[in-house]
Amino acid sequence: MKNRRKFFKSVGLATATALVSGLHPKGSSAESKIKWKMVTSWPKNFPGLGAGAETLAAYINKLSGGSLVVKVYGANELVPPLGVFDFVSSGGAEMGHSGAYYWKGKTEAAQFFSSVPFGMTAQEMNSWLYYGDGIKLWEEVYSDFNLVPRPAGNTGVQMGGWFNKEINSTADLKGLKMRIPGLGGEVLAKAGGTPFTLAGAEIFTSLQTGVIDATEWVGPYNDRAFGLHKAAKYYYYPGWHEPGPSLECIINKDAYDQLSDQLKAIIDLACKAANIDMISDYMSKNYQALEYFKKENVQIKQFPKEVLIKLNKISDEILLELSQKNKLSKKVYDSYVNFLNRVRPWTLISEDGYLSSVK
Amino acid sequence: MKNRRKFFKSVGLATATALVSGLHPKGSSAESKIKWKMVTSWPKNFPGLGAGAETLAAYINKLSGGSLVVKVYGANELVPPLGVFDFVSSGGAEMGHSGAYYWKGKTEAAQFFSSVPFGMTAQEMNSWLYYGDGIKLWEEVYSDFNLVPRPAGNTGVQMGGWFNKEINSTADLKGLKMRIPGLGGEVLAKAGGTPFTLAGAEIFTSLQTGVIDATEWVGPYNDRAFGLHKAAKYYYYPGWHEPGPSLECIINKDAYDQLSDQLKAIIDLACKAANIDMISDYMSKNYQALEYFKKENVQIKQFPKEVLIKLNKISDEILLELSQKNKLSKKVYDSYVNFLNRVRPWTLISEDGYLSSVK
Repeated sequence: MKNRRKFFKSVGLATATALVSGLHPKGSSAESKIKWKMVTSWPKNFPGLGAGAETLAAYINKLSGGSLVVKVYGANELVPPLGVFDFVSSGGAEMGHSGAYYWKGKTEAAQFFSSVPFGMTAQEMNSWLYYGDGIKLWEEVYSDFNLVPRPAGNTGVQMGGWFNKEINSTADLKGLKMRIPGLGGEVLAKAGGTPFTLAGAEIFTSLQTGVIDATEWVGPYNDRAFGLHKAAKYYYYPGWHEPGPSLECIINKDAYDQLSDQLKAIIDLACKAANIDMISDYMSKNYQALEYFKKENVQIKQFPKEVLIKLNKISDEILLELSQKNKLSKKVYDSYVNFLNRVRPWTLISEDGYLSSVK
Repeated sequence: MKNRRKFFKSVGLATATALVSGLHPKGSSAESKIKWKMVTSWPKNFPGLGAGAETLAAYINKLSGGSLVVKVYGANELVPPLGVFDFVSSGGAEMGHSGAYYWKGKTEAAQFFSSVPFGMTAQEMNSWLYYGDGIKLWEEVYSDFNLVPRPAGNTGVQMGGWFNKEINSTADLKGLKMRIPGLGGEVLAKAGGTPFTLAGAEIFTSLQTGVIDATEWVGPYNDRAFGLHKAAKYYYYPGWHEPGPSLECIINKDAYDQLSDQLKAIIDLACKAANIDMISDYMSKNYQALEYFKKENVQIKQFPKEVLIKLNKISDEILLELSQKNKLSKKVYDSYVNFLNRVRPWTLISEDGYLSSVK
């Protein structure tokens, strides 16, 4: 911690201390500006996710009238995609934009703050984060790493993925070679399949050459950009493994603590605005990509109910195992599962009660 | 317009002109503060809606470091609930918090910016508003009234309402006396029922004494506060007539135009943050109220599919009629219906595709 602080102080936060009492007038002097770096896990301007990071930075700049200027770095510009957590933790950058499930190697509990199989939808997740214990617990989990977390986006329910084998029953999961990382992969393994973890760039060729039978990615908008419909026969829904992934903004705690209350509010509320923006953006782009796939005669299929029930049952077991890994995992699991079990009956009456009536 | 401007200038915006170049440091002088009034259509601190107005004002105050201080007035403190539009339009207050469907007497097209029967869900609505033509059209519709509109909240899908008569078929709608204002009421009338428009305070007694057979209100959270379960036998879902009502912040255009870009951004993004907040708040409170109703043995019922199909058909006709009232209604209708028809297949695959798999 001592080294982190030392390093941090040497890389550009000296100006922050002058500003604890509030914003300076725009352009009053060069000294009044704080310059921050935001490292991200996405290629620069990557549709949806990278755009979300840019939006967030732009909001902070605008809200502060240029007093806090955040520069966004794409993956590999300063650190690799999965180096974001450590880099912000140590103060190499003051801010990061990523997904919490990438940090399960650091702390198992992190996964609940992005998405877990058969977990909450975006609206449920935001309700837990903002009006349940979500953010409080997330702060507790990340405090060991000198980080302050804020929800900063959501993709909405993703797609189940691209398949070259038809899934008609749970038997079809046996031996299925599928690119599906994280908890979703653990569920598939327990159902008899073989999960692969492949980087984005390797997916298309692996699917086309038959190294894998199937892959999940994100949803129509991102999947179209990858051309995955040219390498697979069937496009399955729903994305049971990622029903409402929340994206994160992480802030180095030393940097955050040195900000005025006003600049803290600016970051917090810029994240909130960016949160609703991302899913609104995704919806408007996903429907267009879906229309494109239909024109291209992509076969869009729903997983059979039997398969989803089986995967749901396994998911429950996997989450229970996760909760037993350590005390913090148990604490977060208890809060998450309790909220999900209580909010879901309302979601089914309201959101699903309505949508099922207009099908 | 000239008179409005004159009135406006006389009631407290003189200080704004000093601030066009940006924020002043907190507390630098009394002159650096802009003080605004926000009138609302809700009783002070009314659960959900009134709380949303308070949240929005608090966000603006925090983001501006106290440079723009917004004081919230409950309904009837300065103007009656339905006087908000005119009062802000004329500059009596700089800001208002209400629902666009209240202003159909001013401009028919306004209704599309809150909610229409069998219309968009909250997520679809936000996608149209932020990433479709929604806000642009809303600004066009309100520009005739010297107002700038911003989405500032959403209740999510509401409930169908409280009934003392069971609805088993479309025949049961005939002669049904129901408190249901606006377009929902027009739909009911065309289905053979008799719509009533009653103020909140009159609903309970009217239902209990049999003046009406049924009433809609909001959802479990607000309905519980009214004690409606003590006056009705059945609680029906879904709220087909209000599937995702957006709440509005309206700003007097003269006042808005005099703000610096920074303060404009602060208002815009505070509204965005308040938007995601309100539905998150509602979800967390609605599920608790639903649990309470279940404990009280309230009979929760879904409208039969046949009834919903009939109401949906009539709603489509009513919206088409609405579109023919004037050029602006047609323009907004075309954009709204086109977006809904294109986004809905994606909603059914993603949100509903997932939720229907976990029922």
